[in-house]
Amino acid sequence: MKVASSLKNSSEDGESRQSKGQDSRTTILLTAAKLATTKGLAGLSIGDLAAEVGMSKSGLYAHFKSKEELELATIETAAVIFDREVLQPALRAPAGIERLKALVSSFLAHLERRVFPGGCFFSAVAAELDTRPGPARDRVVEIVGNWLALLSQCMLEAQDLGELNPLAEVDQAVFEIEAMLLAANFLFVMKNDPIHLTQGRRGVENVLARLAVSTESMQERSRKTTVKR
Amino acid sequence: MKVASSLKNSSEDGESRQSKGQDSRTTILLTAAKLATTKGLAGLSIGDLAAEVGMSKSGLYAHFKSKEELELATIETAAVIFDREVLQPALRAPAGIERLKALVSSFLAHLERRVFPGGCFFSAVAAELDTRPGPARDRVVEIVGNWLALLSQCMLEAQDLGELNPLAEVDQAVFEIEAMLLAANFLFVMKNDPIHLTQGRRGVENVLARLAVSTESMQERSRKTTVKR
Repeated sequence: MKVASSLKNSSEDGESRQSKGQDSRTTILLTAAKLATTKGLAGLSIGDLAAEVGMSKSGLYAHFKSKEELELATIETAAVIFDREVLQPALRAPAGIERLKALVSSFLAHLERRVFPGGCFFSAVAAELDTRPGPARDRVVEIVGNWLALLSQCMLEAQDLGELNPLAEVDQAVFEIEAMLLAANFLFVMKNDPIHLTQGRRGVENVLARLAVSTESMQERSRKTTVKR
Repeated sequence: MKVASSLKNSSEDGESRQSKGQDSRTTILLTAAKLATTKGLAGLSIGDLAAEVGMSKSGLYAHFKSKEELELATIETAAVIFDREVLQPALRAPAGIERLKALVSSFLAHLERRVFPGGCFFSAVAAELDTRPGPARDRVVEIVGNWLALLSQCMLEAQDLGELNPLAEVDQAVFEIEAMLLAANFLFVMKNDPIHLTQGRRGVENVLARLAVSTESMQERSRKTTVKR
């Protein structure tokens, strides 16, 4: 991915190996991804963005043929940042419940560090695009879907590993965990009070405690294992 | 409240008793409240709104001196609609757990009926105003705060009535219930699938089940009551 590699290089190496044009493009897109969480994607005017990065409007038009192209590239940039700041650190944790908890912590930590000034990029932009059909909306729905699928996968692995009740309904549990993260984001950004990040973390712990392996399900598992042998 | 009475009369009585000016104002504000959930408050241009209600731009300017005045009046209109569609029906339920459940059902039902095309007016607008300080943001934060305070009050009443564990932490429980409603709204509007309303309802039931009166807390309550006598 072009955006991915350009972001990676510019963060890893002060002396960019890329052309000046690519550097400008990266600067524009990083600014756009941050601005979109406070002004919305619709609010990303070429004029404001040019002023923010200190470039002429015509200079900016040289990089993006249309507003739609700018929006899509901004979404891809946010996806790369989310991958680097939230997903990659968490995916180092062992599969199952550990990885699920790492994803939750990593998500809450990126809110606390204000990686994006308006909180989670994808909730901000999804709320805006809900009723604006098109490729930008489709891509955001896809990214949110991938995130939910990752949470599901961790839960299924946790069930396989005997860390969570094998009878727990994964879809409902994923909904509830996502709910805690959305509310933490919504209230933290609205009230600027980190108590809501703590409430989010505790909310997830309460969901997981309900799904903890009960004595009966342990016995059930042990019985099945014995039968297999 | 001027907006409140004009909305009430126009819905109760086809033959409006009000001046034509007030009728137009009501029409503009109802349209604005709905549009704001899809285009955002910032996206409410006088031009678009004029086109939507079939009025000239200058006609619209006659009603609202500034964009800020229009935004504030739109928020008050949404508050009146929310009061009529969500709060009033639920407040008929008896205090405590019944009223809490009625508020949850009433909130989910107003999403399902698409009272606002973009879902909950206040979550849509709060997400947008988070990072735009001013009177519009302050008013939305106040309305969301009143809603959370109402949920708290129901929980405290439920504890007094012995319907919920008196040791349950009300702030955490209110956060979790609000989380289920926010996620139901977010995913229902994004994916247009009513399964998320069901997941929200079940999520709230799971929170309340955890806070149900345990045998120990019943004994504790009974002991306290005996001591009081």
